[in-house]
Amino acid sequence: MTAPGRPLEARRLPAPRPRPGGAVLETVASEVCGTDVHLHHGKLSGVPYPIIPGHVSVGRVLESSGPLADVEGRAIASGTLVTFYDVYGTCGACWHCLVARAATRCPHRKVYGITAPASDGLLGGWSERIEILPGVRLVPLPEGIGAEDFLGGGCGLPTGFHAVERAGIAMGDTVVVQGSGPVGLNAAIFAQLSGALAVYVVGAPEARLEAARTLGADDTLDITRVPASSDRVAWVRDRTRGRGADVVIEASGNPAAVPEGLEMLRDGGRYVVVGQYTDSGDATVNPHRQINRKHATVLGCWGYEFSHLHRSLVLMARHNGRFRWRDLVTREYPLDRASEALADMERLSVVKALVRPRL
Amino acid sequence: MTAPGRPLEARRLPAPRPRPGGAVLETVASEVCGTDVHLHHGKLSGVPYPIIPGHVSVGRVLESSGPLADVEGRAIASGTLVTFYDVYGTCGACWHCLVARAATRCPHRKVYGITAPASDGLLGGWSERIEILPGVRLVPLPEGIGAEDFLGGGCGLPTGFHAVERAGIAMGDTVVVQGSGPVGLNAAIFAQLSGALAVYVVGAPEARLEAARTLGADDTLDITRVPASSDRVAWVRDRTRGRGADVVIEASGNPAAVPEGLEMLRDGGRYVVVGQYTDSGDATVNPHRQINRKHATVLGCWGYEFSHLHRSLVLMARHNGRFRWRDLVTREYPLDRASEALADMERLSVVKALVRPRL
Amino acid sequence: MTAPGRPLEARRLPAPRPRPGGAVLETVASEVCGTDVHLHHGKLSGVPYPIIPGHVSVGRVLESSGPLADVEGRAIASGTLVTFYDVYGTCGACWHCLVARAATRCPHRKVYGITAPASDGLLGGWSERIEILPGVRLVPLPEGIGAEDFLGGGCGLPTGFHAVERAGIAMGDTVVVQGSGPVGLNAAIFAQLSGALAVYVVGAPEARLEAARTLGADDTLDITRVPASSDRVAWVRDRTRGRGADVVIEASGNPAAVPEGLEMLRDGGRYVVVGQYTDSGDATVNPHRQINRKHATVLGCWGYEFSHLHRSLVLMARHNGRFRWRDLVTREYPLDRASEALADMERLSVVKALVRPRL
Amino acid sequence: MTAPGRPLEARRLPAPRPRPGGAVLETVASEVCGTDVHLHHGKLSGVPYPIIPGHVSVGRVLESSGPLADVEGRAIASGTLVTFYDVYGTCGACWHCLVARAATRCPHRKVYGITAPASDGLLGGWSERIEILPGVRLVPLPEGIGAEDFLGGGCGLPTGFHAVERAGIAMGDTVVVQGSGPVGLNAAIFAQLSGALAVYVVGAPEARLEAARTLGADDTLDITRVPASSDRVAWVRDRTRGRGADVVIEASGNPAAVPEGLEMLRDGGRYVVVGQYTDSGDATVNPHRQINRKHATVLGCWGYEFSHLHRSLVLMARHNGRFRWRDLVTREYPLDRASEALADMERLSVVKALVRPRL
Repeated sequence: MTAPGRPLEARRLPAPRPRPGGAVLETVASEVCGTDVHLHHGKLSGVPYPIIPGHVSVGRVLESSGPLADVEGRAIASGTLVTFYDVYGTCGACWHCLVARAATRCPHRKVYGITAPASDGLLGGWSERIEILPGVRLVPLPEGIGAEDFLGGGCGLPTGFHAVERAGIAMGDTVVVQGSGPVGLNAAIFAQLSGALAVYVVGAPEARLEAARTLGADDTLDITRVPASSDRVAWVRDRTRGRGADVVIEASGNPAAVPEGLEMLRDGGRYVVVGQYTDSGDATVNPHRQINRKHATVLGCWGYEFSHLHRSLVLMARHNGRFRWRDLVTREYPLDRASEALADMERLSVVKALVRPRL
Repeated sequence: MTAPGRPLEARRLPAPRPRPGGAVLETVASEVCGTDVHLHHGKLSGVPYPIIPGHVSVGRVLESSGPLADVEGRAIASGTLVTFYDVYGTCGACWHCLVARAATRCPHRKVYGITAPASDGLLGGWSERIEILPGVRLVPLPEGIGAEDFLGGGCGLPTGFHAVERAGIAMGDTVVVQGSGPVGLNAAIFAQLSGALAVYVVGAPEARLEAARTLGADDTLDITRVPASSDRVAWVRDRTRGRGADVVIEASGNPAAVPEGLEMLRDGGRYVVVGQYTDSGDATVNPHRQINRKHATVLGCWGYEFSHLHRSLVLMARHNGRFRWRDLVTREYPLDRASEALADMERLSVVKALVRPRL
Repeated sequence: MTAPGRPLEARRLPAPRPRPGGAVLETVASEVCGTDVHLHHGKLSGVPYPIIPGHVSVGRVLESSGPLADVEGRAIASGTLVTFYDVYGTCGACWHCLVARAATRCPHRKVYGITAPASDGLLGGWSERIEILPGVRLVPLPEGIGAEDFLGGGCGLPTGFHAVERAGIAMGDTVVVQGSGPVGLNAAIFAQLSGALAVYVVGAPEARLEAARTLGADDTLDITRVPASSDRVAWVRDRTRGRGADVVIEASGNPAAVPEGLEMLRDGGRYVVVGQYTDSGDATVNPHRQINRKHATVLGCWGYEFSHLHRSLVLMARHNGRFRWRDLVTREYPLDRASEALADMERLSVVKALVRPRL
Repeated sequence: MTAPGRPLEARRLPAPRPRPGGAVLETVASEVCGTDVHLHHGKLSGVPYPIIPGHVSVGRVLESSGPLADVEGRAIASGTLVTFYDVYGTCGACWHCLVARAATRCPHRKVYGITAPASDGLLGGWSERIEILPGVRLVPLPEGIGAEDFLGGGCGLPTGFHAVERAGIAMGDTVVVQGSGPVGLNAAIFAQLSGALAVYVVGAPEARLEAARTLGADDTLDITRVPASSDRVAWVRDRTRGRGADVVIEASGNPAAVPEGLEMLRDGGRYVVVGQYTDSGDATVNPHRQINRKHATVLGCWGYEFSHLHRSLVLMARHNGRFRWRDLVTREYPLDRASEALADMERLSVVKALVRPRL
């Protein structure tokens, strides 16, 4: 991805060698996520184009410079199927890291496939090889989890996990998820695993809502069929004895979802905003009715920490039979058709798309 | 107060007798708060006019029907100087009370001087006598605390306390308070008592800002002299190493304060909305920049519970020498000049005004 | 139950009539719990013998004095199958209720079947009728839940729920439950519903451990076969990569379980003590190793609030197909064989026993 | 300190040179804390004798290899008066660091003056020079804070801060501190800064209790004059309306303080164990009465994070006029009399002792 709005270019580069303490992976697959579409439209600031997209990926360890170990201290052998925590460069030494303990806001933080310039190396998954810089945390896929399972969740897995953690769901809570993309679907899964009594998904298109129901959502609302916001709010209130939901998780990317979601929320409820990863514009809220009198708790949720990746992955290994994440992968693309993947993603004709550089 | 926009009327009513389990107070003084101005403008919904204004008051126990006791179980004798928790009728039996434990949102909740119709009795402090219904919680003023001390805090005392509790101030946090009325000033006090490193107050007019500085605010910003929102944000960032404040408490009543306050907030900070007690209109926020990417926590804060009244009052008794709440009382009015009090309150020419029915 | 250690007596009493605001139930069934055994041994203080045992019960509404409603405000008709929150008399007016918000420690709190003297009425479930005092919260059993389902959980249902709520289980946590009685089994259920990665139950006898495995426990340890505490600790460490569990819930009633459970806990973990409902003696702990250096959080958990009963019951209605609570009912006894129920309970030959006064 | 129980030895070593990214300080002063006494008695496990004691120290930057910066990113020039976070080697890569986010339990963590072998360099403050390893966090002393001010707090400053943070003191809480050494005194300070209504200190000897009162404690109890535990519990109950304190912080080092402190605690209160830094033996607790029925929260508190050091130091700079930490320094010792400092510390004849290597 050379620049916003420009066609993707495939480039042939020399095979990387691991830096001391680092490694090189042979890519198995990498995800296409909504952020990649935003990147292509130039809607994120501070992106050092050209970049190699693909922030969450799976590969096999090809070579390392020095021994590799997972977070538990167990050695990682060559040939192991791994993913890795895509955030690197978190400094561990600044005020955000040390005093505020808000590592996802560390100003030194970089992300594979997003804020890593191609000049720094093969730091993105849409590539036959991925360079693992020293300090990047490798995570072997648990037994029984293949690349398709993990990437069926993709970055939506830890992001949805983080949103549910932040929501602080109490056992017996009713949860509404706004948005039926990968983040929303994973949030719907983790809400169930956290003791929600019922989970409702509001989104589109129907294929994604069907996926939501298959994953256990109690009911879904197709926003293309119910265009009036007040009708959608009424739909939620009908399912919550008129009170609104205990928890609403916004994972839609649409600014107008925010005031609508606040209307869907009960007094004293919790509202998580996790879908606004790019600036899609402003929203109009009523501070009196929607925040102050409602005694609402509104929680922005940015990025994810290693802990979210680790915990969401062990839960995937446990519940893969029940949720079948790999079924979310609608289509796979070879590297030379990656721009088709972006286009399909943009028109929402796929739930989850993978790039397979070696297909 | 017979109806919105109508002149106040003084009426002579028969002296009340206590109902079984209730009591009658001889009023010493009652506060005039911003809500009274809103009531007079008809900006609150569900108010059963005519009403007797005055929700937070002090009186002496004149008569009771049955023994009276405080929350610690100690008897309250006739003649004791008391205030009372102005909320009554909280049912203790509904879903909000029992399951959500959100008592300030109980639909059966009523408030002296606000949602109590005059036809139900003398349930407001702008009156020579106040009827204490059975179950209303009486609170003797602690030793050393007079009516003027307590009413210098008034309803702003427990409201500001609640806002600071909800903010979850960590020791060493920097706090900005938007608004320099009674709620804002009390929030500035309790922020200091909670371990804030520095407290900044943004408001007007100068007399209130001077009060803020006397009460320990590190610095104040007069919004009438710095009319541009971006300059006010810059003023805060100058005092917080460019990051924004750890905690911002909105106590201004102006919807536009909300997006401005979010800009004053650091990434990962907490924002409390406690000033929007009536619907003064909408606000425009940017969900991406001000909530999601900022990883902000936004906390609506409605009403107060008995606990907030109790705890704020014992802290007043402890710190009255340091904060001198009674100095916030700018002026006192006899009952027949109550409409003057409303007018002075509206033009902010007083910090705190008292009605003294027996002056 | 006339006095500690004395045989149970069946007495014929006049049929009760509802007090104003109250009701009378025709008893369907009442549980026998460990507390009943303790009551019979005189191990609880402040019990006003003679009492009618049976604190958690199910009945049909026979008669009421005034309209009845559930917590959502819906009318409860005669003939409805209900249970009720067994705690009554919580004052809502004392320091514990209002300031500390620790209602389970309100000194005025009384409990059906435990601290209600028989002279006050039919306030226990081992009786053909149960008197519902005014203010006692009735709860209709949800659709699809019969008396056997609910009483299969019994008081262990909200108690186990409360323990899991207090544990603050994070998604992906590994949980050990010490004790395989009704509280332990329900804690194992709710731990799974809260996102635990794995749940291990340490207890006896084998029949209860089998129940635990049927209910989804990943593994169980029979303490009668592994008598050495250090071996049991090693068993947990083997299943937690040597670190100990993230959360341990003590539901055993044995004081020695406390230091053993602390050894099973990882550094920084949370330990809930919910099994010590009577004084069974002291325990020896090492404050340095087991609390301070371990950075442990130890959480006593007393009683349950209405919220816990309500939420655990709606979750039962949702998950009854998965967990099949009614299978925990090992045996039912008519009223004249209640002492046999106590004996079976004491020797742990039943998981859950019911008294059916009208069998 | 060559080995447990052996006399201290002064050794002359070559002046250290900074490693790349590191620095060398000229020592101004270093504290003598209770841990040093324990180290000398061999009561800590895993100490790699010989060591250079002195974990919290102040020095001037003599030389660095590469630019130095504080946590805010500001350059630190040669000659600057600094302290540093004494913990180093926290890996940031293991399960404790990344998943449990319990960095004070990272197994790779080392501490200057405690777990740093002398063979690794001048990693302790009882030395004319201190070597700052790469990655160790330097902290310039704030304006107005001298070495004596900071070391008057010493390691007790962030430790007491951490204990109070963990206690979660609510505004208006009554707090009891058990122990009047540096940790206890700093906990008493930060409890006041957190909104405590009253702080009581239980300890000895009288000189330390006098310091506690000077620092604002409402009352103190000399345990040498009130030897019966039940009398001490009664003393606390007399000051808390018979209920016990909302929060009790154990900072005494005596295992028997734990059950005593639990008796001093109100139902539903929070108990922090921060004084048991070495294994001084077991304690006997009653799980029923002191934990379960009391619904107590017991919080072990180990070590401190950088955040605690940073925040406690900025608060010291703010409140140094009120609390005058430097007055806690009872005596200073040149390096060759360090063993005298240990002896004075052991017999509690000093509150805080400093070693001044260059005196």
